Amino acid sequence: MKRIGVLTSGGDAPGMNAAIRAVVRKSLHEGMEVYGINYGFAGLVAGDIRKLSRRDVGDMIQRGGTFLYSARYPQFATEEGQLKAIEQMKRFGIEGLVVIGGDGSYRGAYALTKHGFPCVGLPGTIDNDIPGTDYTIGFDTAINTVLEALDRIRDTATSHVRTFVIEVMGRDAGDIALWTGVASGAEQIIIPEKGFDITQVAENIREGREKGKKHTIIVLAEGVMNGHEFAEKLDAIDNFHVRVSTLGHVQRGGSPTARDRVLASQFGAKAVDLLKQGKGGLCLGIVKEEIIAHDIIDTLDNMKHTPNLDLYTLNEEISN
Amino acid sequence: MKRIGVLTSGGDAPGMNAAIRAVVRKSLHEGMEVYGINYGFAGLVAGDIRKLSRRDVGDMIQRGGTFLYSARYPQFATEEGQLKAIEQMKRFGIEGLVVIGGDGSYRGAYALTKHGFPCVGLPGTIDNDIPGTDYTIGFDTAINTVLEALDRIRDTATSHVRTFVIEVMGRDAGDIALWTGVASGAEQIIIPEKGFDITQVAENIREGREKGKKHTIIVLAEGVMNGHEFAEKLDAIDNFHVRVSTLGHVQRGGSPTARDRVLASQFGAKAVDLLKQGKGGLCLGIVKEEIIAHDIIDTLDNMKHTPNLDLYTLNEEISN
Amino acid sequence: MKRIGVLTSGGDAPGMNAAIRAVVRKSLHEGMEVYGINYGFAGLVAGDIRKLSRRDVGDMIQRGGTFLYSARYPQFATEEGQLKAIEQMKRFGIEGLVVIGGDGSYRGAYALTKHGFPCVGLPGTIDNDIPGTDYTIGFDTAINTVLEALDRIRDTATSHVRTFVIEVMGRDAGDIALWTGVASGAEQIIIPEKGFDITQVAENIREGREKGKKHTIIVLAEGVMNGHEFAEKLDAIDNFHVRVSTLGHVQRGGSPTARDRVLASQFGAKAVDLLKQGKGGLCLGIVKEEIIAHDIIDTLDNMKHTPNLDLYTLNEEISN
Amino acid sequence: MKRIGVLTSGGDAPGMNAAIRAVVRKSLHEGMEVYGINYGFAGLVAGDIRKLSRRDVGDMIQRGGTFLYSARYPQFATEEGQLKAIEQMKRFGIEGLVVIGGDGSYRGAYALTKHGFPCVGLPGTIDNDIPGTDYTIGFDTAINTVLEALDRIRDTATSHVRTFVIEVMGRDAGDIALWTGVASGAEQIIIPEKGFDITQVAENIREGREKGKKHTIIVLAEGVMNGHEFAEKLDAIDNFHVRVSTLGHVQRGGSPTARDRVLASQFGAKAVDLLKQGKGGLCLGIVKEEIIAHDIIDTLDNMKHTPNLDLYTLNEEISN
Repeated sequence: MKRIGVLTSGGDAPGMNAAIRAVVRKSLHEGMEVYGINYGFAGLVAGDIRKLSRRDVGDMIQRGGTFLYSARYPQFATEEGQLKAIEQMKRFGIEGLVVIGGDGSYRGAYALTKHGFPCVGLPGTIDNDIPGTDYTIGFDTAINTVLEALDRIRDTATSHVRTFVIEVMGRDAGDIALWTGVASGAEQIIIPEKGFDITQVAENIREGREKGKKHTIIVLAEGVMNGHEFAEKLDAIDNFHVRVSTLGHVQRGGSPTARDRVLASQFGAKAVDLLKQGKGGLCLGIVKEEIIAHDIIDTLDNMKHTPNLDLYTLNEEISN
Repeated sequence: MKRIGVLTSGGDAPGMNAAIRAVVRKSLHEGMEVYGINYGFAGLVAGDIRKLSRRDVGDMIQRGGTFLYSARYPQFATEEGQLKAIEQMKRFGIEGLVVIGGDGSYRGAYALTKHGFPCVGLPGTIDNDIPGTDYTIGFDTAINTVLEALDRIRDTATSHVRTFVIEVMGRDAGDIALWTGVASGAEQIIIPEKGFDITQVAENIREGREKGKKHTIIVLAEGVMNGHEFAEKLDAIDNFHVRVSTLGHVQRGGSPTARDRVLASQFGAKAVDLLKQGKGGLCLGIVKEEIIAHDIIDTLDNMKHTPNLDLYTLNEEISN
Repeated sequence: MKRIGVLTSGGDAPGMNAAIRAVVRKSLHEGMEVYGINYGFAGLVAGDIRKLSRRDVGDMIQRGGTFLYSARYPQFATEEGQLKAIEQMKRFGIEGLVVIGGDGSYRGAYALTKHGFPCVGLPGTIDNDIPGTDYTIGFDTAINTVLEALDRIRDTATSHVRTFVIEVMGRDAGDIALWTGVASGAEQIIIPEKGFDITQVAENIREGREKGKKHTIIVLAEGVMNGHEFAEKLDAIDNFHVRVSTLGHVQRGGSPTARDRVLASQFGAKAVDLLKQGKGGLCLGIVKEEIIAHDIIDTLDNMKHTPNLDLYTLNEEISN
Repeated sequence: MKRIGVLTSGGDAPGMNAAIRAVVRKSLHEGMEVYGINYGFAGLVAGDIRKLSRRDVGDMIQRGGTFLYSARYPQFATEEGQLKAIEQMKRFGIEGLVVIGGDGSYRGAYALTKHGFPCVGLPGTIDNDIPGTDYTIGFDTAINTVLEALDRIRDTATSHVRTFVIEVMGRDAGDIALWTGVASGAEQIIIPEKGFDITQVAENIREGREKGKKHTIIVLAEGVMNGHEFAEKLDAIDNFHVRVSTLGHVQRGGSPTARDRVLASQFGAKAVDLLKQGKGGLCLGIVKEEIIAHDIIDTLDNMKHTPNLDLYTLNEEISN
């Protein structure tokens, strides 16, 4: 291949710019051209496409968000949209596509693959909920952002002897809650992958207070339920005066961590390597410290993400 | 005076520990003893009091929260509570009291002053809503915490072409919203001290989009209304799909900034200076860069906090 | 005036971009045009000048450094350079100039003023060593950057029972050392504005150790001497095994703090206000919380910067 | 085992406190007692030992440094010291020991193992230079600290069109330089594991300038040579006016990242698991995402750490 495209799709994640930069720099290094597609699949269909130079990605590795913009575009589920996209790429002479994003982005890459267009999907989402990879681009940054917030909230919780429920992102996956729960020394972690017994949660708070704990911090994955809902359930059992904090959109932003920048760079370069060899229909992952490529159809059809539940057990043993 | 007490009361604020440290260190330097009172006025009434040494405040200047704990204690509004507090201080030989906190704390210090007990109030709250001072302990840290969150949210807002309403703390005062609105380049700042016209706000968003702005960020002081309520009003006018983020308790925590640590240290040392000279019935402020003492009764009865509204005008001129 | 220019000169400082942004936005708001001059006075003489739009300063308020670049340019001390600069500005129709920078930049503005060209100087330097202002753009960010480094070093110092000398910037002024020394709880602060007695410094370390202090941190202003030189003097007295850390260029960078962004915005807008009225020959300052303009010739000829030496005394009283 | 000891030794690293906390909490959870030994092997020989409770490790997971203090203690290389240490542990009824630290700490654990005393070594050092593990406790924090410094320096480098040499830690290993070089987009990375040709380095700088690069950042591992020495070599070739920044001790401190806290917690709990089963003579590692135990004698005698040199190649391909 001589000319490839790159787009970001779905929710943005820190490190997406680092991935785009790696795609561009590696392509130029290999003598290939790169076109950037704005606003994800929407821009692809609309032809919002431009050539990228090395200068376009200068001073970009450290920035949060995505300079190619992102958008949700449900219409891409239709064959019409997909064919239009392929037509646009032909018009620009683009022979292969790098798609950076989460679940929906992979669905788009899957569809293009079925139409025979060479795509490589890169897992880019803070939620870490993508099959075929131990970590996604943005996850490491997100957990450090959440952790910093938890550290701040602990200052206040300790000063006032309070119980806090902190609702964190993660969609249907508990990864963010798990990692930040362990890292912050949270008393309890509530994730979709594990059930919970609200009576037991209340009992644990009471026990902690009897042991002299100044604060109780409960990290709640958004996939379980809303933080306020959870707090109401707790307060219905005992008069805990639970405080709720929903961390919200701050979790998506920020300058990427070292690990996210490195991972994004590795993924970006690898994607170019594969496309250069004419290989498509793939998605990348880091599995046991190795950057590998999976068949994207097999990945979406047959693989499933599961968080590291050993961390759940670990927290039960050392948090109380 | 040979022996003084120190307590923190109301909502905690970064820099309270730095203030306590300065009270302790300066007292020891002046040959005085210091007793720490846990849990604010509640602990004062209950006699939860202990002698503090220089070691108790070692490695403390950089910590958020308050190691003396804080509590709201409405019962201190009764004369009974106040007399009990004075009795406890006599029992411990405490001749003067440093009270660090916000509005409610000042009310407590005011009451003790009326009973003839020497008190010095230090303005400690993130909200900056205390009369008699340009800045309170904790404000500078809070605005930097909010600013960091706004910078992160901008990453996401830009990546998706979105309108965000960010609800920030400040109780009835707009200071946090004003400073962080200017500092983040927010398109609009909504504060209690200024009215707002929702139709005009909507119009501004539309104009911004026409000019090519990728995002609109509206910083809303909690004293105006709830962020979700505000977003609903906006979405009722046009289909903006406004996103809301309520920053919440993270705003109270964190390691204090340089300025908050310096200001807290200045206040703490000054309070000891005054009590050493037998002066009470005071509250401290930094006014035009000078640390000064006001009569606390006059301050609460006759003075009023107003934010720097020049910043509001400034933002209107440079944000669009 | 209808068209003004803006440049940054000398060492860069966080908040310079926020100041440029305010100059541009305020000018457009007032119906004026703004031209950006690259590389300071060097670019001015060379005619490296371009029109700035509102878009050029979008997403810029939070960035460290200066997007107009800066350069030292000693040749501007010659009349020839100055006349060439004025000629270039005439060529571009520029009627007034905003100069953002430190001492050398003020010298340039002073020279242009003497030639009758309207200039407004904005104090932009991390060193806080400019006469006519309590604070310069960049100082607040720099002290927080230094403070964060000092907090990190204290972790290590405490873990090992060590004495550290930390050399911080500030040119001939002790402001950075003073503020960060107080804010970090440093045992000693060594600044050019105060003498020091190395025997006494050594004595203090020994006393601290006897009191049980785990670490001694000495903050040394670069204007006094080199950190290694200072450490050698100490180690010559006793076998302290002093560790030295020279913080270096990290002190100049980083995203500006809330205060630096607000101050920079205030200065930028004020400069435009003045030029619009045809006023030049000025430099701005924040003095006792007010943004004011001084005659630049009087400021350079007759005024002198002094740090707040009360902080020095304060530290002696509460640090040990 | 019913009672174990824990110590930290050598250079401190962020996450050591999190590891100690996990050792304590997990032990209590398993019905075992834990004794903390101050100042590493020095304190072990001297009997500076005390029982740790759950409260001793409360509010500790987020702190840099080590609250058990650390010390270098070359005398522990003698058999006399080792036997004395074992005697002290017997005196306190300590049946097994967790040693957290770097190379020297492992040597100590190795010696105790040879004397038949059950030890488990945990890799705790920012340098990542320990055999048997992909990552050490503290490495992730250190690379993020360095990265933040590099981002700040880039602000300044860009503003002035400069070449910077940044000397980073790592002892004989290039890991810190490699990861932060890739993550910061450094133009060149110089590590001990790869040779370098100073003429080629100079040539690359010149080429970069010709391509329009505003700055060149060279990340230099301390194991290669001193930053100033390197800069002199460069300046001898061409008049680059290279700036040097030696990051120094800030790299050792700071609140640990999410990953370092999680890893430290996993290691701490695993060490207790093993000692509880009576297993000693081990050191832990995370290898391909799995927490595993190696024979400590085999590890030190036969294994060797090597950094991920794929990152070196990657950087050559995408940095220019």
